[in-house]
Amino acid sequence: MFESAEIGRSIAKDVYEKEVVMLREALLEAQYELQQQGRFAVLILINGIEGAGKGETVKLLNEWMDPRLIQVNTFDRPTDEELARPPAWRYWRQLPPKGRMGIFFGDWYSQMLQGRVHGRIKSAQLDQYIDGTLSMERMLSDEGTLIFKFWFHLSKQQMKARLKALRDDPLHSWRISPLDWQQSRTYNKFVEVGERLLRRTSRDYAPWYVVEGADQYYRSLTVGRILLDGLQAALKSRERITSHPHAAPMISSLDERGLLESLDMTQALDKGDYNEQLAIEQASLSSLLRDKRMRKHSLVAVFEGNDAAGKGGAIRRVIGALDPRQYRIVPVAAPTDEERQQPYLWRFWRHLPARGQFTLFDRSWYGRVLVERVEEFCSPSDWLRAYGEINDFEQQMTDAGVVLVKFWLAIDQKTQLKRFKEREKIPFKRFKITEEDWRNREKWPLYRDAVGDMVDRTSTEIAPWTLVEANDKRFARIKVLRTINQALEEAFKKD
Amino acid sequence: MFESAEIGRSIAKDVYEKEVVMLREALLEAQYELQQQGRFAVLILINGIEGAGKGETVKLLNEWMDPRLIQVNTFDRPTDEELARPPAWRYWRQLPPKGRMGIFFGDWYSQMLQGRVHGRIKSAQLDQYIDGTLSMERMLSDEGTLIFKFWFHLSKQQMKARLKALRDDPLHSWRISPLDWQQSRTYNKFVEVGERLLRRTSRDYAPWYVVEGADQYYRSLTVGRILLDGLQAALKSRERITSHPHAAPMISSLDERGLLESLDMTQALDKGDYNEQLAIEQASLSSLLRDKRMRKHSLVAVFEGNDAAGKGGAIRRVIGALDPRQYRIVPVAAPTDEERQQPYLWRFWRHLPARGQFTLFDRSWYGRVLVERVEEFCSPSDWLRAYGEINDFEQQMTDAGVVLVKFWLAIDQKTQLKRFKEREKIPFKRFKITEEDWRNREKWPLYRDAVGDMVDRTSTEIAPWTLVEANDKRFARIKVLRTINQALEEAFKKD
Repeated sequence: MFESAEIGRSIAKDVYEKEVVMLREALLEAQYELQQQGRFAVLILINGIEGAGKGETVKLLNEWMDPRLIQVNTFDRPTDEELARPPAWRYWRQLPPKGRMGIFFGDWYSQMLQGRVHGRIKSAQLDQYIDGTLSMERMLSDEGTLIFKFWFHLSKQQMKARLKALRDDPLHSWRISPLDWQQSRTYNKFVEVGERLLRRTSRDYAPWYVVEGADQYYRSLTVGRILLDGLQAALKSRERITSHPHAAPMISSLDERGLLESLDMTQALDKGDYNEQLAIEQASLSSLLRDKRMRKHSLVAVFEGNDAAGKGGAIRRVIGALDPRQYRIVPVAAPTDEERQQPYLWRFWRHLPARGQFTLFDRSWYGRVLVERVEEFCSPSDWLRAYGEINDFEQQMTDAGVVLVKFWLAIDQKTQLKRFKEREKIPFKRFKITEEDWRNREKWPLYRDAVGDMVDRTSTEIAPWTLVEANDKRFARIKVLRTINQALEEAFKKD
Repeated sequence: MFESAEIGRSIAKDVYEKEVVMLREALLEAQYELQQQGRFAVLILINGIEGAGKGETVKLLNEWMDPRLIQVNTFDRPTDEELARPPAWRYWRQLPPKGRMGIFFGDWYSQMLQGRVHGRIKSAQLDQYIDGTLSMERMLSDEGTLIFKFWFHLSKQQMKARLKALRDDPLHSWRISPLDWQQSRTYNKFVEVGERLLRRTSRDYAPWYVVEGADQYYRSLTVGRILLDGLQAALKSRERITSHPHAAPMISSLDERGLLESLDMTQALDKGDYNEQLAIEQASLSSLLRDKRMRKHSLVAVFEGNDAAGKGGAIRRVIGALDPRQYRIVPVAAPTDEERQQPYLWRFWRHLPARGQFTLFDRSWYGRVLVERVEEFCSPSDWLRAYGEINDFEQQMTDAGVVLVKFWLAIDQKTQLKRFKEREKIPFKRFKITEEDWRNREKWPLYRDAVGDMVDRTSTEIAPWTLVEANDKRFARIKVLRTINQALEEAFKKD
């Protein structure tokens, strides 16, 4: 895989200097066009052999182009805020918005490489990480991000010569850390793992470019050309290409029956039982959240449901016995313009709780496959691929110790009508009922199908859906609380 | 100050229960109205004696109102990201957006109280902190934030009884940390410092409310009523009241001369000198940023100037010899909608560098007193008060070790015209010239006045303006680099 990048490629200085003038102008043009279109972001991942010119090339890109529109990020040591969340959180928070370029140093590949070379990651684990990487990059690409992955290469001899030269150069010697030298010894291992990474993660939507790094002119011009070609092609194709050959459009159930129809909606609790059980479950949740074992976990509860199904009321009962410093409620409304400049899931990633914390999402990332699907706010290919993206997202959470519970609060149409009418009558509830609610009601069958598909495709072992029969509010609230408590207890048991 | 909160106030349970029903509905109404208007944010600061019901009251507020629109924040231990920035950064990042309520526990008053009671803060220092607090709250209020400051009080006897009761209650005993008990011993000191804080910081725009905490009914109803009255009054007064009796509108200089006219615009450098000095200054900056002493500082450079004065070019030369991982350029454009929901300076606070880092602002918070003033994007009272707010902001930076340099790149009208015409001719520069630039040019005298006032009012000992004669780009770039280097050297000398 790296053979053709060890043959000593080079370019004469005068050729380089002539070419570079035109290249710079074209790159600048492309960069401003990118900003003006504002349709997609560009992500450049920098990896490869130490001393192969990674840093120099990034510096050059900043010289050639307008550095104000380029964001360079390194990911050495995670901060404590980052350590308290799933590993990908630190990448998500640094993603470039549409119209901009982001350059990632020390990205997910470096983490895998360093981890594997130094034995912190086992071989099978590496494959898991690679799978995660593929999903992440696929998602980014589907969201319109243009991804370039560069591997700067040197043969072992080339590297040794280069590191020695750098060490002897007083202007550069500060840059050579002991780790880099150590890498000289582990060159073989590094290249072996690198090859495996490149082989498994080079895809049409996020290809690797191996660049021989020995000659600065060859290296710089190559990277510049690749970027320019990729940028120009993407800027020209005004259409997002999204093909999903294997995703047959879903059809509504032939018998007009679904999971929701099979719920026993008559379940109810009388007031006495309710009050007693509420006190027990609330006390239990309060003490579970104060449990020492909670320090290794965080808790995320997702509330979805029909309009007027009682999400708000259920949430209030869940937090009823908690100290407000322990939880945060995230009400999900229309995305802000900063959120619109990012991949869909970005606005949920930013709210993930740190370890020990509890976040309740009042509506959630499932909006994509519910309201956005039904109202056609996004294309079918967008919501069709969302199922997989969501499963990946949730796996990342649970892998990081997040206890995730998801509720669909279901009521029947009759109950909804009754509640809508009540809301219109009570002054302080009239805010809760709008024209939109009535419109949504007419789309009941569409929502039923959407909910069915959602549960079929995203109720997983690691993050099952809990369907809550919510015609009786008391029954629903207790079921919600009990489910959360059981999830925490099970998580603690496994520790 | 606390006498009337030690007389054993109480309310009968049945009175309370009757009152509360109406109070809750009214609070809910007000809260939704707040959201719908979206005109201002509400900030509630919670302080006072341990065991006086602070936590209980906040819990109750979340029960009474819609907890989805309330954000509760605690500020115990700062994270490492917070420790690397000016102390107020952690408060800024948690400010509630317009239309929402934020409740701060362990806010700036707790920090001052704990610090002074335990001797970490000297008396004179406390006064400085108080001054900072006053500026912060004044600014928030001017930006439309409705501030409530609650002091929950108990007499010493009441506190002792309460803490004992809590300790003996198995459901609560976990909440009493050793520190709290210690506070029982330091009650006198705590109250003494508290009185000083309240006396000095109770203002019409952010008054303190002392609430006797012994009786839960009295306490809860009192807080609820105060909130409701304040909210309703603010919601009714559709106009923001901003009076600035002492801020006489500024007038243009009578002799049509200003600081900018006194610059020697003929200063220039020939190419040879320039190249030599550029190499020296760039190398010097690169090594200063790698200096160990930089770990205690961060560097912020602000670039303002006439259109086409060469800000972009100067920025490129500043970063010319730097590793792109060391700096970040923040191009300041129109605020995003999230930024518009916050006080003006919020969008700059969020980009402040951590210690060891370097941030370049391409345009900055001075937009308020430049373009926003000239184009009348904000009211005169907004930009008139901005001078003081900016000085406070910059003082907070420099107090925290930020080395702050501010550049105004000045060119004359003739030079600007020449550059505009050049830009229109060169393909990859045509993005840099718009209709707006031509329009701005017609407002030259207005900008001249604005710049004069800006320098007069914000060129301070801790953060002086550097006026850069920029008719000659080479001269300007060297002056910028040299100024930055000197600022760093001086800061290091003082360490």
